[in-house]
Amino acid sequence: MALVGGGPGALDLITVRGLHLLQQADVVVMDRLGPRGLTELLGPEVALIDVGKEPGHPSRTQEQIGALLVEHARAGRRVVRLKGGDPFLLGRGGEEVLACRAAGIEVQVVPGVTSAIAGPTAGDVPVTHRGAAVALHVVNAHGDLGPADLAALRDPGTTTVLMMGVGWLPRLVSQALLNGVAPRPRSR
Amino acid sequence: MALVGGGPGALDLITVRGLHLLQQADVVVMDRLGPRGLTELLGPEVALIDVGKEPGHPSRTQEQIGALLVEHARAGRRVVRLKGGDPFLLGRGGEEVLACRAAGIEVQVVPGVTSAIAGPTAGDVPVTHRGAAVALHVVNAHGDLGPADLAALRDPGTTTVLMMGVGWLPRLVSQALLNGVAPRPRSR
Repeated sequence: MALVGGGPGALDLITVRGLHLLQQADVVVMDRLGPRGLTELLGPEVALIDVGKEPGHPSRTQEQIGALLVEHARAGRRVVRLKGGDPFLLGRGGEEVLACRAAGIEVQVVPGVTSAIAGPTAGDVPVTHRGAAVALHVVNAHGDLGPADLAALRDPGTTTVLMMGVGWLPRLVSQALLNGVAPRPRSR
Repeated sequence: MALVGGGPGALDLITVRGLHLLQQADVVVMDRLGPRGLTELLGPEVALIDVGKEPGHPSRTQEQIGALLVEHARAGRRVVRLKGGDPFLLGRGGEEVLACRAAGIEVQVVPGVTSAIAGPTAGDVPVTHRGAAVALHVVNAHGDLGPADLAALRDPGTTTVLMMGVGWLPRLVSQALLNGVAPRPRSR
C-alpha cells in the first residue's frame, strides 16, 4: 500500500514518485481533500473509491478507511491512498499506516507539498524571510489554540499557519487577542 | 525565472511542475543543498552554475546569486534556480524573488517537499498524529532558540523540528533544558 501526498491542489504539484505510483495503481482511495483532478488521469480499469469527508455529510470513519485499504491490499491489488498535501502533516496518515501494519500490510509513505507552505506561497508570502521570520508554526485550528500556538502567534519571528480553522475564526481571533497577540498586522 | 523547490533529496520527490521546468531550462543555478542528482538528467546544452554554499568554503553571497539570476534572465534565457526542500521555508527564496523583481524580472515560485516533514517521515515519524501532536514547529536552529521555539519544545502536543542545528546541538540542548524542556523522550 502506498500513502501518497497529492500536494496542495494543482495537478502538477504532486511529486514524480507519487504520480508514478498513482499511474500503476489498481485501486485509488481518495476524499475531497486530495487533488481530485488527478484521478481523471487514471485509466478506466482503475477502481476509484471516494471515502467522502464532505462537511455535513456522513463519510467513512477512519477505521472503515483503514479496513478498506487492508481489504484491497490483501487481495493483492496495488492500492494508493491519495491524500491532500502531505500525509503526515494533519492528514491522519499515521492512523492509516498503523491500521495497515496491524494487518501485516507494508506501507510506503510518499511525502507531498503541504498547503501550509504552498498556500502562503500562492499569496506571495514566504513563510520564512531573513530579518522577518525564522520559524514556521502550523497547527490544527479546528479547536482551541494551545500555549505553544499562542506563543507562536505572539512572536514576530514566527509565521503561524492555522489549518482547518475557517469555521472557528471568530473564536480563534478572540482567543488570540485575549492572550496578548497584537491585533494589527506586523510591519516588516 | 523559476525558483523551484527540489525536495528533500530523492530525485523523484521533486514535483512534476518542477521537473518540467528543469527540463526546459537553459540555465540551472544550484548549490549543495539541492538534489544534485537532478542535474545529471539535464542535457549537455544546459548551463549548470554551482553557487557553492559548501560549509567552510567561500561561496557566492546572496547578492551575487541574485545578480547572476538577473543577468541570465535579462539575456532571455530560461533560468531555473533549484533549491533544496521548499524555496520559502528556510531557503532564502524570498530574497532571490525580491532581487529579480527589483530588476523587473518575473518570478514563478514552485513549492517543494520540505525535509522538515520528509525527514521525520523517512524516520517513520509522522509530525502530527491524533492523540499525540496537533502542531508542527520548524525553526532555523543555526543560532539561539526564541520564546516561541522553547514553548513548542515544552508542549507535548507540538512536534518541533530544528533545522540546520547540528553544529549547535550541545548549545541547543543546554538552552532547552535550562528553559523547562523535559529531558526525556515523551511517552506516546
